[in-house]
Amino acid sequence: TGSHLAEVDSQREWTDVQKKIIPWKNSTPSLDLETAFQDRAAKLGKSNSRLIVVASLIDKPTNLGGLCRTSEIFGASALVVGSLHYIQDKQFQHLSVSAEQWLPLLEVKPSQLVDYLQQKKTEGYTIIGVEQTAKSFDLTEYCFPEKSLLLLGNEHEGIPANLIHHLDVCVEIPQQGIIRSLNVHVSGALLIWEYTRQQVIKQKQQQ
Amino acid sequence: TGSHLAEVDSQREWTDVQKKIIPWKNSTPSLDLETAFQDRAAKLGKSNSRLIVVASLIDKPTNLGGLCRTSEIFGASALVVGSLHYIQDKQFQHLSVSAEQWLPLLEVKPSQLVDYLQQKKTEGYTIIGVEQTAKSFDLTEYCFPEKSLLLLGNEHEGIPANLIHHLDVCVEIPQQGIIRSLNVHVSGALLIWEYTRQQVIKQKQQQ
Repeated sequence: TGSHLAEVDSQREWTDVQKKIIPWKNSTPSLDLETAFQDRAAKLGKSNSRLIVVASLIDKPTNLGGLCRTSEIFGASALVVGSLHYIQDKQFQHLSVSAEQWLPLLEVKPSQLVDYLQQKKTEGYTIIGVEQTAKSFDLTEYCFPEKSLLLLGNEHEGIPANLIHHLDVCVEIPQQGIIRSLNVHVSGALLIWEYTRQQVIKQKQQQ
Repeated sequence: TGSHLAEVDSQREWTDVQKKIIPWKNSTPSLDLETAFQDRAAKLGKSNSRLIVVASLIDKPTNLGGLCRTSEIFGASALVVGSLHYIQDKQFQHLSVSAEQWLPLLEVKPSQLVDYLQQKKTEGYTIIGVEQTAKSFDLTEYCFPEKSLLLLGNEHEGIPANLIHHLDVCVEIPQQGIIRSLNVHVSGALLIWEYTRQQVIKQKQQQ
């Protein structure tokens, strides 16, 4: 039908726009893009949260594609990746099931992360590292602020020590198994869910 | 070192035992196997829950391998699969990171599921379908019983109608995105986590 084709065209244009995003540091595109995406999403009846998921340290396209799908479904306001080239990867696309058309993807290279996190702090975000440290909060006890930024660690090395200093807090998932740890997509999904669950409960209490 | 090699041997033997499990219906191996695994896990300081994850309807080895890893980490008492042959699959093994050595895997074919669910009901388990239906509970509102059995749906078809009748309850994950639904491994992980979170909170309240 005509309207279906128009929608497909609109999606194509949108993907083209997204591919041309200038890296975060060279301009101020992130705010404009987020706003534009949110307008578009709102027209479709979709509500967006104030949750930013930062996956710049993650290497595997499968994990990034999966996180893209999960972040979109829970209405995260953006997914930050180390390179926008991942969007072209077939494994990414297979796992994301085209969620990148409905969620702003921003490029922040690992070398730019310190500056990016500082910037987000000045915008009122709490910077939350998903990492096991001596001072980490247990996920069953942590209360997420409305403006939350989740920094996920690398598949093998987690969050490097120089970045740990720039976090406001670390949160860890209590794990009982013999196997060392959860897959990073699953870890991210559990924190995204827990943030969402807490927001839903808060909204119900306010009604 | 000697003890390390002994442990490796023990793991190999254990995997051999697991491969020889007779399908559920032909005997009563499930209880014995669960008990044996739990004794072994307890010796290693691992606590087990009363949560059974039933993945017999799932087709993709990647989803099954991922669920195996996640179920093991949260101390599920068993993962039920449609065929034990999946353990040999390279994609399964890549995603499970050998979690199948620390978690009982039982084979219940899709055609055996009705009988299996009935049997578990008589053992006191609540049969919980992860599925969107008109009567589903929202995951933010559902309170898991200690003896919970999660039935996950097929990647494409969900839980077939003839099985829906045999469930005690359906639980759905509230989703805000444009993309249709979460990956089944992620859906399962969120319910496993929510069960675990509630058990942790109950245990703290009892102390």
